Amino acid sequence: MLTYIYIIAIIAEGMSGALAAGRRNMDIFGVGVIAFITALGGGTIRDILLGNFPVSWTQHPSYIYLTVSAGLLTIVIARFMHHLHKLFLLLDAMGLIAFTIIGCNVALNLEYNLAVVVMAGMITGIFGGILRDVLCQRVPVVFRHELYASVSLLVALLYLQLNAMGIEEDINLIASFAFGLTIRLAALYWRWSLPTFRYEPNRWK
Amino acid sequence: MLTYIYIIAIIAEGMSGALAAGRRNMDIFGVGVIAFITALGGGTIRDILLGNFPVSWTQHPSYIYLTVSAGLLTIVIARFMHHLHKLFLLLDAMGLIAFTIIGCNVALNLEYNLAVVVMAGMITGIFGGILRDVLCQRVPVVFRHELYASVSLLVALLYLQLNAMGIEEDINLIASFAFGLTIRLAALYWRWSLPTFRYEPNRWK
Amino acid sequence: MLTYIYIIAIIAEGMSGALAAGRRNMDIFGVGVIAFITALGGGTIRDILLGNFPVSWTQHPSYIYLTVSAGLLTIVIARFMHHLHKLFLLLDAMGLIAFTIIGCNVALNLEYNLAVVVMAGMITGIFGGILRDVLCQRVPVVFRHELYASVSLLVALLYLQLNAMGIEEDINLIASFAFGLTIRLAALYWRWSLPTFRYEPNRWK
Repeated sequence: MLTYIYIIAIIAEGMSGALAAGRRNMDIFGVGVIAFITALGGGTIRDILLGNFPVSWTQHPSYIYLTVSAGLLTIVIARFMHHLHKLFLLLDAMGLIAFTIIGCNVALNLEYNLAVVVMAGMITGIFGGILRDVLCQRVPVVFRHELYASVSLLVALLYLQLNAMGIEEDINLIASFAFGLTIRLAALYWRWSLPTFRYEPNRWK
Repeated sequence: MLTYIYIIAIIAEGMSGALAAGRRNMDIFGVGVIAFITALGGGTIRDILLGNFPVSWTQHPSYIYLTVSAGLLTIVIARFMHHLHKLFLLLDAMGLIAFTIIGCNVALNLEYNLAVVVMAGMITGIFGGILRDVLCQRVPVVFRHELYASVSLLVALLYLQLNAMGIEEDINLIASFAFGLTIRLAALYWRWSLPTFRYEPNRWK
Repeated sequence: MLTYIYIIAIIAEGMSGALAAGRRNMDIFGVGVIAFITALGGGTIRDILLGNFPVSWTQHPSYIYLTVSAGLLTIVIARFMHHLHKLFLLLDAMGLIAFTIIGCNVALNLEYNLAVVVMAGMITGIFGGILRDVLCQRVPVVFRHELYASVSLLVALLYLQLNAMGIEEDINLIASFAFGLTIRLAALYWRWSLPTFRYEPNRWK
């Protein structure tokens, strides 16, 4: 099940990358590259940080074609995207949760300590979007809008807690997805967001 | 032959990094660092992604001195650069092709699959410029102007095709350079570029 | 001694990251992440470039908590920070020097050549700040203000020279800190900075 959701997730992330590239008027080559980086960049950074070589996507060339294709397809269907806005946000939320759980498992298998396992989950979940925003010249949205990075953190903590309690993997996945989707969608609906830190020094370098 | 062209290439890339740093009024230290990153950053990211340690330039300290020196020299000769504009674009195009072919060969030797080999070539060719643009706060030009990243892709495909057909390496290199230079220079002359994707949502986050 | 200074250093760097995040109105999650990346990003990039796995902080989870906490604490005390401006600059300078020396030692132990050892020191010293600035959308300040990156370079050269001369480690540390602090604080006091390179082409792409 996680694999299917993962594939949906990288498609959704690739599309979000393509839209960001379109806002910067990139050419179709750039759209493909940004789609690829948005979808697979989080997992790539996780693998490099954990010393987990070869990096996952290098062993699955089909993921390369899939994410680039999703990016290019987005160019064609962009004009209809606002009709699909809610579906897109749902897929994006599922992707965030799937990425987080997969990232935790990679670090667990490498026997890293708990703090690093949680960070591996979050990095997989949110760093694709951070790379997308850096390449498209904006301050990373994951740190500024409705709960997003925090959903990744909470899902990682729940998943690892249930895992440590010996709950069966299937039930753990269902519980983690139900929990994560509920929070993320509630955050979108009621515009929950974390307090922000506003610092406007006049004398600070 | 490839080594000589590679050395010319890292000098040309170092100079392009220095000019970008100069447009941001960086100090001479920053100019040297950006020159280094522009010239050797693409190969560095390729090596890290492929798990190819030690990273190439750490074994060739002369490349560090060469690229930093090229950056610093650019400060002195910048006022004359517009006379050398065409020469510079030619060297830059040769560098793009040399980087691409070298990148493909690194991944081939590590026995990665074909899709990763092509990407290793393109990453070596274009990521130095992407890092330069991110550090100098602009949207990466490789995704916005005359064919550039696409030249890297096409050269990689031609080189690997001739390689797979058992063509002798020397002839393959000559063919790949002739092909790549023709496309890149034609793209500059006739202002060929890929279609761009313009996305201006009013309701999209 | 170096360990204590290192811990002070990552706290100071985490705080500088939090302030930069606050200037971009990030939420408290973003503040924590930027604090972490500013404090530990330089060492992370050094470890990855040198192939030094596992990356240091993955073996010291306490550093994760420490830097994130420093970032969050900064939100509370930001309004008083201008009273602490001078203390903060002192801690930041000590951090720069400690990071540089630690970075040199990591590369020395891996038996890299001298140029790479110096670069490992500088990367550890300045790349956390560069990552912070890229994520917060500004041109890296280390390349534009009072001597900063150059202090890292000079400290690395002095430390390695004394090391090669067989000077005892403790004395070398004291000499390197005295030298580095003197230059950095003098640069701040008298506003020493490197010449900048201003390039304003009208015909250059």
